[in-house]
Amino acid sequence: MSQSLPTPRDTEAKLQHILLHSARIFAEDGFEGTSIRDISRATGISLSGLYYYFDSKQRLLYLIQNNTFSFIVTRLQERLEDCDTPVARLRCLVQNHIEYFLTHPNEMKVLSHEETALDEPFRQGIAAIKRKYLALARKIFDGVVAESPNQGLNARVAVLSLFGMMNWVYQWHRPASDPGAEELADTIVSIFLYGVAAAPRQGKNLSEHVPAAVHYD
Amino acid sequence: MSQSLPTPRDTEAKLQHILLHSARIFAEDGFEGTSIRDISRATGISLSGLYYYFDSKQRLLYLIQNNTFSFIVTRLQERLEDCDTPVARLRCLVQNHIEYFLTHPNEMKVLSHEETALDEPFRQGIAAIKRKYLALARKIFDGVVAESPNQGLNARVAVLSLFGMMNWVYQWHRPASDPGAEELADTIVSIFLYGVAAAPRQGKNLSEHVPAAVHYD
Repeated sequence: MSQSLPTPRDTEAKLQHILLHSARIFAEDGFEGTSIRDISRATGISLSGLYYYFDSKQRLLYLIQNNTFSFIVTRLQERLEDCDTPVARLRCLVQNHIEYFLTHPNEMKVLSHEETALDEPFRQGIAAIKRKYLALARKIFDGVVAESPNQGLNARVAVLSLFGMMNWVYQWHRPASDPGAEELADTIVSIFLYGVAAAPRQGKNLSEHVPAAVHYD
Repeated sequence: MSQSLPTPRDTEAKLQHILLHSARIFAEDGFEGTSIRDISRATGISLSGLYYYFDSKQRLLYLIQNNTFSFIVTRLQERLEDCDTPVARLRCLVQNHIEYFLTHPNEMKVLSHEETALDEPFRQGIAAIKRKYLALARKIFDGVVAESPNQGLNARVAVLSLFGMMNWVYQWHRPASDPGAEELADTIVSIFLYGVAAAPRQGKNLSEHVPAAVHYD
């Protein structure tokens, strides 16, 4: 009996399995240092089995990066539906981002370290979804600033500084002793909104702005 | 006539030449993907000539990282001598850090991407100088917070968030269109001190707190 093609459900689960383990291997050994054969070993899927999902290491790296940004953006858009103030929307952005990357450190490392490893046309594809995410963040930021007295800030620098606070977390976060996603999101939002010298409110108040935390599986 | 050993002055200049070009090659091709032979080609120094300075790729990576942190910390300590308020000291820290990394993107990439590539005992050596730098930053931060009403923030998270803002710059900064080190330092200090929603002052006022900018050669 010939082997039947995987059902759509199996295909998606298997793809997620491949992306998860490939991200781990790329994070550990680097994109350059990893072969398709290494991916096959790490995922337990044969070379021809892998070929069903991607035809090159470039496409695999693209799939990891695209899958990550798509998930983050989609989840953020869902969460924003329950946020009705500018500050609540900002907190959604930060908590969504930090929750994802605290639970996906390998993907974080692959995104930041292998950004230049991607060739065209894949690079443009990722640049497009990153632009979409950044535009969403900028819109949230503009909403906050529209209500504030501090309109002289360079918005691009401010938004990217916020991403800096969030994206650097993977470099220093120790799960055993450092705060979890929710407290981290509170602290970062508090600093970003009010600074360390002027902050009129603490994390607890910020938490009131958002619906109950949604946790990733 | 046998070739004479380089004078101390030449030795230091040659070492800096080696570290500069090695950082570039490591940034471009990764630590794993680079051989001592590649370093020899990139620096124009023979293998035996390189051996005078380091006996392994590990030691070379250590020298790059140690040289970078030593330079930053020493220069910061010099600059702090002219800074007499907590805010001025904070601005010194930020401007010193950003000036260095805007002009040394390769070193930034090597520090953040190859952090785990270093084996013992080199890793401990770098961890020690990073701790020293972080302790200095923490002292500066504590000085700011001592004068502020916002003493409930997690200081470790706050200081590392500041480093996040600074260390992420290399990922997005476009020299042709984005602000230079001084304006960037102003914006980041302004956000960190007062936030985007509450900031009572703009960059110009912050600049008054520091002596004339010192530019790296």
